[in-house]
Parts: sequence; C-alpha cells; structure tokens
Amino acid sequence: MTSPNEFHGWIGHDSKAAQGNLTWSSFTPKPFNPIDVDIKVSCCGICGTDIHTLRSGWGPTHYPVCVGHEIVGHVVRVGSSVTNIALGDRVGVGAQAFSCLKSDCEECSSGLEQHCPKMVGTYNAKYPDGSWSMGGYADYVRVPAHFAIKIPAALKSEDAAPMMCGGITVFSPLRNNGAGPGKRVGIVGLGGLGHFGVLFARALGCESVVAISRRRNKVDDAMAMGATDYIATSEDDKWARKHSRTLDLIVSTVSSPDMPLESYLRLLRTNGTFIQVGAPEDKLPPIAAFGLIGKGCKIGGSQIGSPRDIEEMLEFAARKGVKPWVQRRGWGGECCGWGDGGREGEVSVCAC
Amino acid sequence: MTSPNEFHGWIGHDSKAAQGNLTWSSFTPKPFNPIDVDIKVSCCGICGTDIHTLRSGWGPTHYPVCVGHEIVGHVVRVGSSVTNIALGDRVGVGAQAFSCLKSDCEECSSGLEQHCPKMVGTYNAKYPDGSWSMGGYADYVRVPAHFAIKIPAALKSEDAAPMMCGGITVFSPLRNNGAGPGKRVGIVGLGGLGHFGVLFARALGCESVVAISRRRNKVDDAMAMGATDYIATSEDDKWARKHSRTLDLIVSTVSSPDMPLESYLRLLRTNGTFIQVGAPEDKLPPIAAFGLIGKGCKIGGSQIGSPRDIEEMLEFAARKGVKPWVQRRGWGGECCGWGDGGREGEVSVCAC
Repeated sequence: MTSPNEFHGWIGHDSKAAQGNLTWSSFTPKPFNPIDVDIKVSCCGICGTDIHTLRSGWGPTHYPVCVGHEIVGHVVRVGSSVTNIALGDRVGVGAQAFSCLKSDCEECSSGLEQHCPKMVGTYNAKYPDGSWSMGGYADYVRVPAHFAIKIPAALKSEDAAPMMCGGITVFSPLRNNGAGPGKRVGIVGLGGLGHFGVLFARALGCESVVAISRRRNKVDDAMAMGATDYIATSEDDKWARKHSRTLDLIVSTVSSPDMPLESYLRLLRTNGTFIQVGAPEDKLPPIAAFGLIGKGCKIGGSQIGSPRDIEEMLEFAARKGVKPWVQRRGWGGECCGWGDGGREGEVSVCAC
Repeated sequence: MTSPNEFHGWIGHDSKAAQGNLTWSSFTPKPFNPIDVDIKVSCCGICGTDIHTLRSGWGPTHYPVCVGHEIVGHVVRVGSSVTNIALGDRVGVGAQAFSCLKSDCEECSSGLEQHCPKMVGTYNAKYPDGSWSMGGYADYVRVPAHFAIKIPAALKSEDAAPMMCGGITVFSPLRNNGAGPGKRVGIVGLGGLGHFGVLFARALGCESVVAISRRRNKVDDAMAMGATDYIATSEDDKWARKHSRTLDLIVSTVSSPDMPLESYLRLLRTNGTFIQVGAPEDKLPPIAAFGLIGKGCKIGGSQIGSPRDIEEMLEFAARKGVKPWVQRRGWGGECCGWGDGGREGEVSVCAC
C-alpha cells in the first residue's frame, strides 16, 4: 500500500459549488510530516457544514476546496513518529485534522483538542505550515494521526462515517449534560444530526426522548428511531404551553436563525439546559433574560468532540448496536450524492 | 411583643412612585396563618427590583404597593405551626415569601424553592388566598416562617439586610458554578450586586476577580473590595481582545439591554460560563451561535437562592468576615433613602 503524490477529489471552485458545480480534479495534498497518515477513502458522509462551506455561508471559503469530513478508510502510509495507527488500520476522520497538542495548551492538555485555539478543520483551513486542508470526497486524505480514530470491527464503514461529525456533534452534548436514565431529552430538528440525537438519547437510556420538528411529516420516522413523543412546532396548537417544563435537556440541531428559541426554553424544567449545535449563518433570536433567570436555565454550545470522545462514542455505538439510517450513494465521477442528500439527511454516505 | 392589625409603610400608588412619590400610609397585611410570623422591621436594603416594580418596568404593578425585600427585624408573633423560628429571633427576609413546599413539587422537594411555580415574591405578588404581599419599607412584615432566616450573631443587621437579595443573587451563581481556588471570575457591573460579587468571589478564594464596568471611575473602589483587575468597557482600548479567554465564569449584574454580550463571551475560556442575574426590561442582545459553540460556553440565569442557600451565605459571610459597603439612611416619615440610593448602590439600607 502507498499513496500517490497527487490526490483526486470533488473540487469546488467558487460559491456556486453548493449547487453541485463540482469537478473531479487532482490536487496537491499538504506536505507529509512524520506525524501524518494517508488514508485511502472508502466512505464519506455528507454534512451540512459541507454546504455552508461550499457557498461561503460562514465567511469566505478558500477555493479550490474539497469538502467532506465524515471519512472512513484504510491507512496506506504512516509517518515515522506515529504510534497510535498502523498500516492497514481502518480509521475515521471527523471535522478536525489538527491541534497544537502542546502541554502548555489549556485545551489540548485537558482533552479538549476540539477547542484548541490552533485547531485546523479537515477542509478549508490552514495548517501552521501554510498549506490548506482538503477533505474526504477524494481518493485519499492526509491528516495527523492523532485525529485518525480506529473503527471498532462491529461497525460498518458506512455507519461509522456519519458518526465522525454528525454523531459526535450530538453524542458529546448528550453525555456532557447528563443524558441517561431518569432524564427527559428533547431533540430539535430531525435531519442527520437530529436522527443521531434520537438514536443516541434512546441508547443512553433516557426516560423520554422528544423529537421536535416543524411539521408532523417525520413523526413515523422519529418513533421508529426511538422517540417517545413528537412536537410539530408549526402544526401543534399551543405546543410550548402544553409541553412546558417537561424537559431536562434540549439539543438543537437546526441552523435556522428564526427558530422559536424562547418557546424551546419554555419546555425546560428548572435548571434545564439548551445546547445549540447547529450554527446559523445569522445570529440567534434575542431572548429575554427572565427566560433564563426564572428557571435557572442555561443555553450553551457544543462543538464536535475530542478524539477520546469519538473513541468513546464508537465503542458505545458498537456495544449498543446504534445503527444510523444511511442512504448509500455512488462515488467517483458518477455520483457524489450532492444533488439531494445534503440538506435533509446528513446521513447520506458516499461509498466506493 | 405583638403586632397591630394594621401595618404602616411607604406606599406607591402609581408608576410615578419610582420618582419618590411615596406616602407613609397604613395597609392591611395578608391574613395571619399558622405558618406565618410577624417581624418588626429594623432595616431594609434598597434593591433595583424596587425601582423596576414601582415604575411598572417589568409589567403592570399592583398598586398600592409597599416594596423592599432585603429585610431584617425581630420576630414579634409566631404562628402555631411554626417550628424553625421563635419569638424574639432576629431574622432576615429576602425576595421570596412563599412556595408550595409540597412533596410532589419538583422544585420544593429538591431544595429549589425559589423556582417553585407557586413562588410568591415578598411584594407585588398574590398569595394563594388572593391577598397581596407587601414588602419591608414598613413597620412590620408578615411572611411564612419558612422564608424567615435567622441571622448569625456575628453579622450586623444593616450588613445582613442587603445580603438577603443582593448578596444571595450573586453568591448562588458563584457557588453553583465553581467559583473558588484556581478559578478566574469576572463581575460585570459595580452597583450593589456587583459589589457583593467582588466581595464574595474574593472571599471564596478565586484566583482572580476582575471587575468589569463601563468607566474607570470605580477602579479604586473595586480594588478596595478585593478585585485583582479592572476592565472599563467604554474607555479601555480593545478590551475584549486584550482579555480574551481569561475568565472561567462571569456573573453579570447589569440590566441594560445594550450590554456588549458578545464581547463578554470573548472573555470566557473554553467551557466557560456567563450567568446573567440582572434582568433587563428589554431582551438581551442577540448573539451568534458560534460564540457559544466555538468554545463550548454557556449563558445562564440565576434567581436569588433557596432558604438553605441564604443560610449558607450568611454563615459563610459571618465566618469570612464579608462586610458589605453600606450607606445607612434614616427612616419613618423622614427619609427612606429613595432619592439617590436605588440605582447605583443597592447596598443603601434604611435603618430605624
């Protein structure tokens, strides 16, 4: 096994790329360092961040760009300093490709690599040497081995791939905010992230798992995923009042700036927590301080997870048999799944 | 000792009351129940909530109203069911006068009486029997004994009074969010609440205590209270960048809706927490979700404290010698301190 000097991938050249204007082109990967591995990509999940980035929605994107950060593949080249990964290992790469890992970094030294100020994303981000990261809709991907996580044998590659970003993005806030037996959890949005939210909340043993979406058209899917109740905010009458003070934790996966945030807060019990993981391109709607003060509630954010968090999630998913709903799509010059898969279901996976 | 059938207090009759249009008048207190005590008031602190209420700032006030909920006095009448308080005890009453205390109340049964859905404030609130609560700028106050807290002998009445609301409002979020050795804490606003924030954060042993105010005119006072650093947001150049990622916890005591909330969030370290205790009459400024997600931060609210929290605070203050800066004012027909004390310094205390 080895890797070529030039990689190939689906390249976006300008902000029209989000409409599918991608070309299968060659590109030069970052220089190979002793801490790096090269991975031959077998699957790559589709994430909403891919869309935001392709259309420069979160700020100007550095084109040409190759997106995709829910990657699974086999290691074909291993840097001389790498100790955690061996040639041939099946590994996953999520949304983060680099952090400083220095002992005097508050974040890295406490297992919070995803918050390292030197954090480099898996695509559209600049490494300290000035080279740009390129993502996983490609034949190969090159990353520091610290951010390549071994996949347990019990998980299929196409199931593990979307967990690398979509899965960990909801698993982390659930685990870090006490989701488990006796807890009542709401999941806002039923796209790829929200579907993982319902699956993981259920697998964690939460007392109730309430799926919250705009319309009722996803109720059957939500129940099949393990939801115990369903709220349709555009269709259910007086839903905020009816379900007031019923939830300990809400994880919001939607990225619309006109979300009914104050109504979501009404659903929280005393000392409840609302965690936003979807990142709107605009600001969140303003809220009255009383909405937080009166019940002692908190609104927080959560960003993916550390390599250790991802390992824990993958082990948990393997042990509990958590199985995402995956739409398998073609690859390589024929179909990358972009046309219809990115928005509603981040669980679409491009597989060789 | 006994109490009359009619009490007397400083009564506001309409929203002009906030400009000092108060009359010393008689009023009929709520009916005396077996769980109640009557307290002969000796001191009452001035709280910003008094102003908001007198001017109907948080919604229509029920006039006539007698405000004041930082009360210290001696018990002169004890209901037949009362076990925690005896005749002659020196007690304090804060912003809460009633909660249901039922065993099936989630909040009351877990020591969170201040969040009980049946919570009744010490003034401008309706008891379950339909009578209205009346506050402490009066000769007597009548409340259920559960919300009358004994004052440790080491604390002067005039020092304990403003702790009953102003003190506990900042003590609770400091304690509940880990303020202590090794922690770096910011206090926004240096009025009555903020002054308690600096005093308590210092007494709790925080590594640093940063006072944050608009102008530099309070820097000497802040340092004398125990602050280790000072930020003047209207005068210091690029303060948010300069102090970026320096604080674990910020307690915001200001109630201006145009506060630079996003800049405050920049001051937080990874996984930091911002707790709002001042309640603006308008909404909080909108923020970008990235401000929370990127560092895993939370924004929360905190509302006074439970009777047990208040006991703990008073014991802590007595043990550590926490001494608020009190302006003592006259009382009873002559001066109630209203003219100039309410806005900048909630620590003004009316004393007999």
